Amino acid sequence: MTVLTDAEATRLCVVLVRARNPGNIGAVARAMHDFGFPALRVVNEYPVPFEAARSAVDASDVMASAAGYSSLAEATADCTLVVGTTAVGERELRHPLLELPAGARNLRAELAAGRRVALLFGSEKTGLSNHELSFCHWLLTIPMYQHQAIRHPSMNLGQAVAVCLWELVHDRAHDGSASPGAAASSAESIAAPPADSATMERLTALLTEVLQATEYTRRHSANCDPAHIRRLVRRIGADAVDAPVWMGILRQVLWKLGAERK
Amino acid sequence: MTVLTDAEATRLCVVLVRARNPGNIGAVARAMHDFGFPALRVVNEYPVPFEAARSAVDASDVMASAAGYSSLAEATADCTLVVGTTAVGERELRHPLLELPAGARNLRAELAAGRRVALLFGSEKTGLSNHELSFCHWLLTIPMYQHQAIRHPSMNLGQAVAVCLWELVHDRAHDGSASPGAAASSAESIAAPPADSATMERLTALLTEVLQATEYTRRHSANCDPAHIRRLVRRIGADAVDAPVWMGILRQVLWKLGAERK
Repeated sequence: MTVLTDAEATRLCVVLVRARNPGNIGAVARAMHDFGFPALRVVNEYPVPFEAARSAVDASDVMASAAGYSSLAEATADCTLVVGTTAVGERELRHPLLELPAGARNLRAELAAGRRVALLFGSEKTGLSNHELSFCHWLLTIPMYQHQAIRHPSMNLGQAVAVCLWELVHDRAHDGSASPGAAASSAESIAAPPADSATMERLTALLTEVLQATEYTRRHSANCDPAHIRRLVRRIGADAVDAPVWMGILRQVLWKLGAERK
Repeated sequence: MTVLTDAEATRLCVVLVRARNPGNIGAVARAMHDFGFPALRVVNEYPVPFEAARSAVDASDVMASAAGYSSLAEATADCTLVVGTTAVGERELRHPLLELPAGARNLRAELAAGRRVALLFGSEKTGLSNHELSFCHWLLTIPMYQHQAIRHPSMNLGQAVAVCLWELVHDRAHDGSASPGAAASSAESIAAPPADSATMERLTALLTEVLQATEYTRRHSANCDPAHIRRLVRRIGADAVDAPVWMGILRQVLWKLGAERK
């Protein structure tokens, strides 16, 4: 019934950031099992309570191969697209925001094009922090009912994952609308593949160094918060060909500043 | 975002039959709250553990009006359509079976026609019994991934309800034609508008000046053809907010190089 191949589904990494409740981790693993997504990554500063989650019904295969990370940078290093989920709310967003049906189509096209995608879910209480959002290329939201009395509805973690994964796998061909994946992936094959997250981090570090060396940091400190710089670099959407060019330019700036000082 | 009116959503009764875990009842109520379905009915032969479920986050309005019944006959008495959910399995089915996307369309049409619909979810362990299925006009199933080793996958109760309700409410009208690329750019983004062409030209000119001042042009002449630099800048796709930031950074590089020379 799925419109994704096994290889495509394997390239989607569900990344739980600071999930607190082992029951929720187990529920996420079960939804992944139900819809055929094997790759679970869990980011926590303290040891992840895998043991309790491993007992979740029907989730043992996903939990057995789940990987723990101590930072989001490590957990997304090999991914070329990082997408955060959000309930929106009052957060000031500088990211493109896609609602679920359109966002799922976009994710399917990326997976079909051979990219490894990280889909981030934040902690049950706070969602993703601004620091965590700064790793994201765009954000995905599940549109919800707007209750008059409640300004910012949010979903249960396991339910949010289940709805997102369901939307990714089910067959739009039986749904009266054609699958747009084919056209998209043929268009994308002309462009260079995107830079992975580790490359974007190196680019961010180099830019930060330039900003300091040129005293930009001192003059425009409001722009120089680390999350701000990371988002600025992510928004340039450099591909695997352009990213080294930009790094070369920044290195040259640093070299020249050093040479002038001598 | 919903394609259902409030009156239509109110006519859908989610009926939990022999749900055992108050946490699951709370999770169901939360999903109903999230997607705007107020009518929860719970069928149990013994007193329903509402108290524990009432504490579920964001579910208080649904739980406050939840109704308890001691039989399925009573719980569905005022409904003109009764639909059971099932993970299928080996059960000998005597009912028409609809998979979720088609089934949701069917339910929407019934609700729009003014009918009160009962959507039944069975107990976590056993699903709906044959007796309970006998109340149903047809059955609804969420198609799942077929693991080789596991013959009958089933979903967590709260997740199954969330996926069914999501499928009922979201707007298929926005789901037909757009390509993923179009979706990304037409994203309901709180992102800034794109920079205009004149801005991109100014950015290109500034970058060219930096490449010359840092001797990058001399070292990497192959990258420094004017058309090459323009394309590099266009590909960063800077928006109207980021473009001035990048220009500020480049100006600062030029200023610092000048200052170092003095």
